Amino acid sequence: MAVGLKAPATLHPVKGIRLSATHCGIKQDSAVRDLVLIEIAEGSSVAAVFTQNRFCAAPVTVARQHLQEIPAPRFLLINSGNANAGTGNEGIQAATRNSAAVARAGKVNPEAVLPFSTGVIATALPDEKITVAVPALYASLQADNWLQAATGIMTTDTLPKAFSKQINIDGQLVSITGMAKGSGMIRPDMATMLSYVATDAVIDPDELQALLEQLVASSFNSITVDGDTSTNDACVLIATGASGRRISGRQEDFVAALTEVFVQLAQAIIRDGEGATKFVTIEVEQALSEDDAREVAYCIAHSPLVKTALFASDPNWGRILAAIGRARVDRLDIESIDLYLGATCLLKNGLPDPGYTEASGQAAMQDDEVTIRVNLNQGSGRARIWTTDLSYDYVKINAEYRS
Amino acid sequence: MAVGLKAPATLHPVKGIRLSATHCGIKQDSAVRDLVLIEIAEGSSVAAVFTQNRFCAAPVTVARQHLQEIPAPRFLLINSGNANAGTGNEGIQAATRNSAAVARAGKVNPEAVLPFSTGVIATALPDEKITVAVPALYASLQADNWLQAATGIMTTDTLPKAFSKQINIDGQLVSITGMAKGSGMIRPDMATMLSYVATDAVIDPDELQALLEQLVASSFNSITVDGDTSTNDACVLIATGASGRRISGRQEDFVAALTEVFVQLAQAIIRDGEGATKFVTIEVEQALSEDDAREVAYCIAHSPLVKTALFASDPNWGRILAAIGRARVDRLDIESIDLYLGATCLLKNGLPDPGYTEASGQAAMQDDEVTIRVNLNQGSGRARIWTTDLSYDYVKINAEYRS
Repeated sequence: MAVGLKAPATLHPVKGIRLSATHCGIKQDSAVRDLVLIEIAEGSSVAAVFTQNRFCAAPVTVARQHLQEIPAPRFLLINSGNANAGTGNEGIQAATRNSAAVARAGKVNPEAVLPFSTGVIATALPDEKITVAVPALYASLQADNWLQAATGIMTTDTLPKAFSKQINIDGQLVSITGMAKGSGMIRPDMATMLSYVATDAVIDPDELQALLEQLVASSFNSITVDGDTSTNDACVLIATGASGRRISGRQEDFVAALTEVFVQLAQAIIRDGEGATKFVTIEVEQALSEDDAREVAYCIAHSPLVKTALFASDPNWGRILAAIGRARVDRLDIESIDLYLGATCLLKNGLPDPGYTEASGQAAMQDDEVTIRVNLNQGSGRARIWTTDLSYDYVKINAEYRS
Repeated sequence: MAVGLKAPATLHPVKGIRLSATHCGIKQDSAVRDLVLIEIAEGSSVAAVFTQNRFCAAPVTVARQHLQEIPAPRFLLINSGNANAGTGNEGIQAATRNSAAVARAGKVNPEAVLPFSTGVIATALPDEKITVAVPALYASLQADNWLQAATGIMTTDTLPKAFSKQINIDGQLVSITGMAKGSGMIRPDMATMLSYVATDAVIDPDELQALLEQLVASSFNSITVDGDTSTNDACVLIATGASGRRISGRQEDFVAALTEVFVQLAQAIIRDGEGATKFVTIEVEQALSEDDAREVAYCIAHSPLVKTALFASDPNWGRILAAIGRARVDRLDIESIDLYLGATCLLKNGLPDPGYTEASGQAAMQDDEVTIRVNLNQGSGRARIWTTDLSYDYVKINAEYRS
């Protein structure tokens, strides 16, 4: 069902990063990878952001604690198939034991290992299966294993999600490679999203964290509601420095390349959205503020009636306008709104455009990539977010997920 | 698909109210009523609340204007099949022409007629069909026509919704009868809900309006998000005074009877929710405030993942906890939350109750009426709301609504 999602193209190794993936037995199908290890070279800068959901999973709690102790972790251990969320103190112990197993193999402090989990909530993590698998996993670390790692973190994803860029800065080649998993993202309230991006540029830790937060805002946080992150969401950005090229956050070509990686990964999650038949871009322009623009965009993106109309390829702009009408923003003026589907103007000043016909609206809806553009004609605030439609298959996937 | 919804039982006429219903040609099937007229005796008190959506329909605008001019309207004209929303100035003209037609028939000022519409958004209202039908509609007004009127305001409703109570106050019989329509209420962002309730008690207009607002908060506004009303939502409460019995808002037995009518009608909308297979009550207790309790309740009620789990009769409490975890309330403490499905305790202090088994959870989910009860163990705020699951048929109904 993925919309315009392709298998990853060439994934450049990133100097200072080695990866491995295996099947340890969390998932039932022995042909499917469910455990991934990422080794980060000493001296790297690492930045991370985690879910803002109060109900955060055990590995998130442990990873946050470990980062407090050792700001530059050396290993990331990721299992799929079980979120280790809602598992209480036993879940914390399990995540801690798994980190310790990696620490023994890699001869580092246990706090230099960050655990991550994704999958079913509220089932005990079979952490002994992970612990047993760690030595062989460690032994098989390789620089050119991004694709295998990307498949190892999948849950309901239909394709691995990874993207790579190389950029030449003043004659020095810098690589950026990232992977992500996530599919249940129409409204992310389970253990949905993980992403790991690495570059061999040299970036100071503080600058890297600021850069990550800025990048996430316009990528992964533009496919989710402010704070509506899941129990396990995490995004890690690593700068190994192995290329020797020092980068500041103001290096525009580098930031552009990094942004492209983040946006491609975020869009890949939406393209692979559960049951998605449409990839929908929602652009809101000329709002009084950026916050207002985002609020309007999310009201449209979350309306089940808009989403089912998108599924039906029905240019039912009344539903879009009704969704805008309930946005929690001040001074919304319906009579100054312009609404476009792609290049087709549906509404001008809140009323059907004289040139609009039902046929032109339907033509604009046929494509599996649709852009809804709203101009509020009020100020200079703007937002762009990505979402999917709401299909039978979304219901099917989520009604049957545990069955 | 309605969940435990029965056809209306005896509907007592309300002295001072006459109703009629007919097919005027807005709906294609000539056997289906699509136009309703309600006559209100002179001297009645009338209270009304309307949608808070900025994108309100033409009849809402006209009805509000008319109420400004004449606070005690004499006629309510309701068409189904077309919402007259998103129709601009032409829609205003159409609603005004229809009101004028009723005014001519009933020999009242045009401003004494309130127009209401429900149905498809953004299609011109064929107001001449209504105007032509008005004289015969007026001629057929009868006191005992509540059921016919309730069928005449239906759109995707599968059954008419009406409820009646009689109450003996100090030897005087007072009648309360009400009707409602609405079905697309999982998240109400189209022209969904209308309700008309009448009593023959004597109630002063100001007191009636205050009473209506209080009743709506615990009934129709407990099946919708704060302010998430549709383009056409309206609720009218009429006190004809024809019984001669004067009532104050503090008359407890009367208010209880009126509350029962409102809650029954509101629940009927949920029971008939589009594609509903479950009638779900969400109770949040011991929150820091009532607002917090409502926010938590709505986060659960709106989570597509919770709703699809309900559809699957899957006691996936991790999804419920994740939905609670993203509620926009201060000082939420996951570790003090108790969670119940009916009488079955799932979580105690945020962790699985020792007595809980997957089997007991699934047993609690089998019924088509499910209560999710959350105790935040923090304060004294509480809320109770009603919602439905999210099924294939919800998607089907809303993807095909205009087809």
